[in-house]
Amino acid sequence: MNNEILIFGSLALDSVQTPFGKRKNILGGSATHAALSASYFTTPVIVSVIGEDFPDEHMAFFKKNKINTKNVELKKGKTFAWEAKYGDNPNEREVLATYENVLKNYSPSVLPCHQKIKYLFLANNSPSSQIILLDQVIGAEFVVWDTMTFWIDRYPDQILKILPRVDIALFNDCEARHFSKETNLMKAGKKILSKGVKKGVVIKKGEHGAFLFTRSFTMHLPAYPLEEVKDPTGAGDSFAGGFIGFLAKTGKVTDKSLKKAMAHGTIMASLTVEEFGADRFKKLKKRDIQKRVLELKKIIGF
Amino acid sequence: MNNEILIFGSLALDSVQTPFGKRKNILGGSATHAALSASYFTTPVIVSVIGEDFPDEHMAFFKKNKINTKNVELKKGKTFAWEAKYGDNPNEREVLATYENVLKNYSPSVLPCHQKIKYLFLANNSPSSQIILLDQVIGAEFVVWDTMTFWIDRYPDQILKILPRVDIALFNDCEARHFSKETNLMKAGKKILSKGVKKGVVIKKGEHGAFLFTRSFTMHLPAYPLEEVKDPTGAGDSFAGGFIGFLAKTGKVTDKSLKKAMAHGTIMASLTVEEFGADRFKKLKKRDIQKRVLELKKIIGF
Repeated sequence: MNNEILIFGSLALDSVQTPFGKRKNILGGSATHAALSASYFTTPVIVSVIGEDFPDEHMAFFKKNKINTKNVELKKGKTFAWEAKYGDNPNEREVLATYENVLKNYSPSVLPCHQKIKYLFLANNSPSSQIILLDQVIGAEFVVWDTMTFWIDRYPDQILKILPRVDIALFNDCEARHFSKETNLMKAGKKILSKGVKKGVVIKKGEHGAFLFTRSFTMHLPAYPLEEVKDPTGAGDSFAGGFIGFLAKTGKVTDKSLKKAMAHGTIMASLTVEEFGADRFKKLKKRDIQKRVLELKKIIGF
Repeated sequence: MNNEILIFGSLALDSVQTPFGKRKNILGGSATHAALSASYFTTPVIVSVIGEDFPDEHMAFFKKNKINTKNVELKKGKTFAWEAKYGDNPNEREVLATYENVLKNYSPSVLPCHQKIKYLFLANNSPSSQIILLDQVIGAEFVVWDTMTFWIDRYPDQILKILPRVDIALFNDCEARHFSKETNLMKAGKKILSKGVKKGVVIKKGEHGAFLFTRSFTMHLPAYPLEEVKDPTGAGDSFAGGFIGFLAKTGKVTDKSLKKAMAHGTIMASLTVEEFGADRFKKLKKRDIQKRVLELKKIIGF
């Protein structure tokens, strides 16, 4: 049986500058990276919104990857757009501009036939829209959730209400420190877990790897080392897509499968950043992923 | 047979401030941390110099840990001293003062009976004094070498002459970037390796772990996660002591033993920073080390 994954996030047109070059209006957005990444494991169903300028070729690319876009609304106006610049440190970026466009006043709606999907990824979004999603997807059994400092600052109470409804909460290191008010990431992870998150807290550290804190174990996994990071955009969402994708494919959530999901998330992130935007997915094969997971195992083993 | 390790480094009186407190004139120095760490694996022989103010209790502490101090010279004047301050980020420190004292004009001399020791650790020191040591220890078969930005800036040519004489070169991330002129640590490690280092280049990233680059494999090991780092001083030298100590005890240098040495170095560093100065070694048992090595294996496993 194919365990679908419902992914609620953005479809965007990104403009990025990195030490390796510049790209304008390329395919981006949290739902894009998460869905493409998850598509190597099972069938993703995107819940999102686009404007009239969203190129057909991107929808064709999703279709080619067997990504379901029936919950993608087409609205009058322009697609959500975003501009950013990265320097030599791939862990630091400067957001140059954000154009909300069709995302403004968008309220997500899930088709009845998709409301029983068991695996749900709530990518970075306003807590209120995430709650709308959680309320609609009555079949959700395993929820991975992401946020960012912007929402932590504005709606801390809503976030505290969401946490006990999610299985895995994702933070990057800065967000985790900011939300928990703890400098040490071990303390930060445990404190966030204590807010009622059902299974675990993941703290991502970019090129330094990621932590997973659960009530029964702690995992500290390094990143897959790369000589060149062409475009760090989408690393976190590709991680999430690989993480939940692996679990949905496996069909069970155990300590062991969570650890393997961390490794698959890590590898999907390492692949994404090798090309601009979502370009890496254009030539990516399943065997490339498997090969790199085995390499990671070798790289850390002793 | 007991494979002794010759350790050439400093014996110091340190004054440190961290978010956990202040200490004045406590036992410090690269040879101190490296030798105490290595003493859990085999017999360290320190080559260093002290002044008249160096407390007897420290020498007694070395003796208790079966550390050979016959090559420690007592000179008129004061012991090398150092003052530093750490903030919330244990990877960043501010050096407040350095008092060279008896280190000034000290030229190391190794007793004839110790010149055939096979394992040699050259802790951070002037390249010229490191060369004196290398020339004296004619029996050296495995050399681990450390440096710092100060020497890289002043004597790059001497460092290039040393590299082909050492088996393992240790750098922290900043030093490696500075020396190689590469931002990416994979590129930095490989570039330094290409300068003729015999076996491998270790790049330490503090709380983020460490890399080992050799011609046959790359290792990326995360740090053992700690909730509290009381005093980061000596982490690098404890790493080096555990690394070379494990290899000397094992008696052979293979890909496998190098990987295990990385794990033991990582664990010795994680232990040292749990207390101020060298205090952690006062109560440390061999079984504490072994337990933590196994925990590290579990923390990264998938």
